[in-house]
Amino acid sequence: MAPHFISNHQARKRFCLLLLCLFTWVQSIAQITRIEPPFWYSDMNHADVQIMFYGKNIAQNEVSATNLIIKNVQKTENPNYLFVTIDTKNVAPGTFVFTFKNGKKSFTQNYTLKARKKDSALRKGFDSSDMVYLIMSDRFANGNPKNDSSPNLIEKADRANKDGRHGGDIEGMIQHLDYIKELGATAVWPTPLCEDNDERGSYHTYGQSDVYKIDERFGTNEEYLKLSAELHKRGMKLIKDYVTNHWGYKHWMMDDLPTYDWINQFPGFKQTNYRMTTQFDTNASAIDTKNCMDGWFVKSMPDLNQTNPLVLNYLIQNAIWWIEYADLDGFRVDTYSYADKKGIAAWTQAIMEEYPHFNIVGEAWLYSSAQIAYWQKDSKIAAIQNYNTHLPSVMDFMLQGILAEGVLNENKGEWNKGMVRIYNSLSSDFLYPNINNILIFAENHDTNRLNQFYPEFEKYRLTMMLLATLRGIPQLYYGSEIGMAGDKGQGDGDIRRDFPGGWPGDSQNAFTKAGRTPNQQKYFDLTAQLFNWRKDKNVIHTGKTTHYIPENNVYVYFRHNDQESVMVIINNSNEKQTLSMDRFQENLKKYTTGTDVLTLKSIPLNQSLTLEPLSGSILELK
Amino acid sequence: MAPHFISNHQARKRFCLLLLCLFTWVQSIAQITRIEPPFWYSDMNHADVQIMFYGKNIAQNEVSATNLIIKNVQKTENPNYLFVTIDTKNVAPGTFVFTFKNGKKSFTQNYTLKARKKDSALRKGFDSSDMVYLIMSDRFANGNPKNDSSPNLIEKADRANKDGRHGGDIEGMIQHLDYIKELGATAVWPTPLCEDNDERGSYHTYGQSDVYKIDERFGTNEEYLKLSAELHKRGMKLIKDYVTNHWGYKHWMMDDLPTYDWINQFPGFKQTNYRMTTQFDTNASAIDTKNCMDGWFVKSMPDLNQTNPLVLNYLIQNAIWWIEYADLDGFRVDTYSYADKKGIAAWTQAIMEEYPHFNIVGEAWLYSSAQIAYWQKDSKIAAIQNYNTHLPSVMDFMLQGILAEGVLNENKGEWNKGMVRIYNSLSSDFLYPNINNILIFAENHDTNRLNQFYPEFEKYRLTMMLLATLRGIPQLYYGSEIGMAGDKGQGDGDIRRDFPGGWPGDSQNAFTKAGRTPNQQKYFDLTAQLFNWRKDKNVIHTGKTTHYIPENNVYVYFRHNDQESVMVIINNSNEKQTLSMDRFQENLKKYTTGTDVLTLKSIPLNQSLTLEPLSGSILELK
Repeated sequence: MAPHFISNHQARKRFCLLLLCLFTWVQSIAQITRIEPPFWYSDMNHADVQIMFYGKNIAQNEVSATNLIIKNVQKTENPNYLFVTIDTKNVAPGTFVFTFKNGKKSFTQNYTLKARKKDSALRKGFDSSDMVYLIMSDRFANGNPKNDSSPNLIEKADRANKDGRHGGDIEGMIQHLDYIKELGATAVWPTPLCEDNDERGSYHTYGQSDVYKIDERFGTNEEYLKLSAELHKRGMKLIKDYVTNHWGYKHWMMDDLPTYDWINQFPGFKQTNYRMTTQFDTNASAIDTKNCMDGWFVKSMPDLNQTNPLVLNYLIQNAIWWIEYADLDGFRVDTYSYADKKGIAAWTQAIMEEYPHFNIVGEAWLYSSAQIAYWQKDSKIAAIQNYNTHLPSVMDFMLQGILAEGVLNENKGEWNKGMVRIYNSLSSDFLYPNINNILIFAENHDTNRLNQFYPEFEKYRLTMMLLATLRGIPQLYYGSEIGMAGDKGQGDGDIRRDFPGGWPGDSQNAFTKAGRTPNQQKYFDLTAQLFNWRKDKNVIHTGKTTHYIPENNVYVYFRHNDQESVMVIINNSNEKQTLSMDRFQENLKKYTTGTDVLTLKSIPLNQSLTLEPLSGSILELK
Repeated sequence: MAPHFISNHQARKRFCLLLLCLFTWVQSIAQITRIEPPFWYSDMNHADVQIMFYGKNIAQNEVSATNLIIKNVQKTENPNYLFVTIDTKNVAPGTFVFTFKNGKKSFTQNYTLKARKKDSALRKGFDSSDMVYLIMSDRFANGNPKNDSSPNLIEKADRANKDGRHGGDIEGMIQHLDYIKELGATAVWPTPLCEDNDERGSYHTYGQSDVYKIDERFGTNEEYLKLSAELHKRGMKLIKDYVTNHWGYKHWMMDDLPTYDWINQFPGFKQTNYRMTTQFDTNASAIDTKNCMDGWFVKSMPDLNQTNPLVLNYLIQNAIWWIEYADLDGFRVDTYSYADKKGIAAWTQAIMEEYPHFNIVGEAWLYSSAQIAYWQKDSKIAAIQNYNTHLPSVMDFMLQGILAEGVLNENKGEWNKGMVRIYNSLSSDFLYPNINNILIFAENHDTNRLNQFYPEFEKYRLTMMLLATLRGIPQLYYGSEIGMAGDKGQGDGDIRRDFPGGWPGDSQNAFTKAGRTPNQQKYFDLTAQLFNWRKDKNVIHTGKTTHYIPENNVYVYFRHNDQESVMVIINNSNEKQTLSMDRFQENLKKYTTGTDVLTLKSIPLNQSLTLEPLSGSILELK
């Protein structure tokens, strides 16, 4: 075909058309600045996906889709949001086209349904066979110093500031997975990794500004996927720290709320009273109950309103999206008992319906077994109030509290002191619907460091023996395995110190044996020995517990099933003790010897044992 | 008719016959020395009465009865006991004759079925409209100095001995019922009054030697009936302190047990471990659980074996007998949670089936709402273990413990100190199946005296304000109303001092206004004013509670129903406080003034209140 020339008139017309197209195109670019979730998956239980389109005056458009059923289009008082619910049931993976039309103007927007990973719905969450290693993400290891600051994010790295960003990142975690594995941990719980664009204190990342995006200072979404894959390659699991209760005040929506009541308004900020008992207290005043639940955790964290169905669904989809996208093995849910009660239960139920074997552990920081057990799925206590969280796992703050109150410093055998406090705490285990699915721990990123209560190695040793053998899922806080110190009285920064060796140029590298001091090595060896031993001990994971009333501050319990039996002896007294075996006959049965898990010595069980002061033994019975 | 003469032969024959008769008669006298229950009642739900006949070789006899169906005759390994079950259903009151026959020898024994008091089965037990006055029976008032010692009982009166018998008695109680009534009490709970023939420490009477007989040093069974009648005459109630767990080692059966396992044998004595948590702890070892339940409270108190049906039924019948006989209004059950779990539930259920509106408060001395609530009838917590005590009422040891730990000495408003501890305790009220039917108290005969924790009148005042307005049934311990002191550290005798004026010749008589010191009068007036006010306040008896999170150590709660509302303000701080009314609007509603129950002043509610340090107000809202 010969070239052809265009007349001036034609040219002008065409130029106008081009301008128009350009304008429309620019307008369409301008109109959709966010799509959340950015994509979805075929063959999900949650098949009605409510896509949030965000863009200037987006709600002025009519929306249609090709090869997709739009079940609902919801507008809010803010024209910049459009919530479009599509039905993905029986829809094969592919890319679909939405058309947005406003009068004569229109533009299109692609949306993708991806294929799910095989057996994704059947994924098995972390459980009592695991040991969870909790990492303060900014403080563990700086694998990529280039991302310590980002031009897109306000707070820049400042390692000299205890409360500043230090540069720890996902790459740092990946580089030290073998270290974590060597320790006997089988699951990693990093504190939140999504973007937190606060001006100060953003390092802890509980004030998220974008819940679909990894903070650039931690890495990229792709690096997060790599972390997940690298863990799975090692037979390990990834637990995401999920925050349903609040976002950061720098969250992108906060300047342009979809609805006024997207967050709990007083109007604006009012601090929660933190009295979580109001959540079940039938005597509580309405105002106290509301202020607890709807009040903000801190001023910089607007409190999400889970009674708003749009918010609730947004949170459900975001959670499911991350599980599917990053191939997760579990959630740890922050401030679980501060959210709207009905909302948080619906959120949990939706996730568990999508992934029936998943695991979610919720933070209900209470100091009563009944009050903690209240929050576990199928609690008979919550059933008194016709409530059911559907939350599979809760945290054993009873045990943590007792350890934090210095039980191991109570070295005299008194009626209500020392080991009997742990014994008493376990006496309420029947209140939990599932006692194996509770997280047990001595400390976390919000408490004093274990080393602060117990600077003595002997007491660290007893603590780890308890965590390695009691019912539940043990959780270790990064650094404790090398005796890392930290005093919450000095501020949160002090309990979240940098792991030595995590930063290029660190004077010491405790990630390697060569780099560890003899004292650090002692801590590390004990921890690794215990938790590696625990790995394949079904009897610890799911065996029954039988415990004996402590006498002279000596606590003895057995973990047992039809195949195996383990005897644990904790002498928390400062005295040498002689322990007669007579009392334990119902558990000793025909066993004649016990192999000490730590010393590997064989101990005859037909005679009394001599227990050194502040010592313990874990004996596998033969 | 003319007199007739007897031949020698005839005389000899008749003499032999007389001897034979005499011998038989003597034998019959010897054979039955105890019959328990000594009589029964017609028209009882518990119509199958198992009568225990005790006598030398009684079991060698065949037993029959006229006009009574014998359903069962049970012998034990001890031939001196015969348990004969009769069916009294539809049997009218009357005296019936049992014939005991051993070969050719026989004798008869009468047994009476009495008529029941009208509507006996429908008797209404004590409830939250009551205030219970607890009396240490030996230490309240010596109404009859002639019975201070008894030739039949070992321990003689010795008022100089803090742990000895002082001579308090039933007559002393009767003489001071008007005093008790003046105080606002509506029910009296005397510590056990049945015979306790211990050599030492018998005054507390928890080691009973005869559970069908009032201790002669307290009076007679008839005097006990008089006490009941005199209380009822005043519209007041009598609560019997019942001991199901143990008897004293001087109990008449102990020398000749009906069955070896009538008591828990190890053999003989073994002390309980007192760890009541073993009763529900699914981790507890069998040996610890058994030792708790079956171990003896102390060496002098053999532990009854309620798993033995004969024992259980003996205890059921004894309990019902006393209710019917003495026209009781309630039981307080000692060491409730130390008895066999199934047994004590069956015992409780049997009594409540006999008297559906009766009340029984059990002592389950635990410091966890869930663990206490476990023991209340229809507990959802106990239902986890398919257990139900049928026990209507439990004791609020949570509140007692908090008061005893010195909550009113915590005068700074801290997160976990002061009034917030009481607030927290009430936050678990939903765990109780019936929150109004719990006994609330600051002290009893086993704890430190209230005056020991709080020698200051202001704190006594706050305690009484709490007891007079919180949900439940308030219980006062004799003497506290005059500020009586007592330190458990000095021994139990010190918390059980003689009430001044209870003994002839006492230098002071605090039973009368004239006899009281101004300080005692101040205590008395406050107590009387509060509890007399409480008497007809339905809103306190059964109203709903709404409480507010304490701020600055000021605790505010409302008791309210559709008709009335009472506002209670407790300022436990050492500071003067200004209390804004804003927070309480959901309870203040349209009320504009409050009448202070103690000062009778009218307080406007449309403005802030000024609260003096360590002060409280009870306001009836208008």
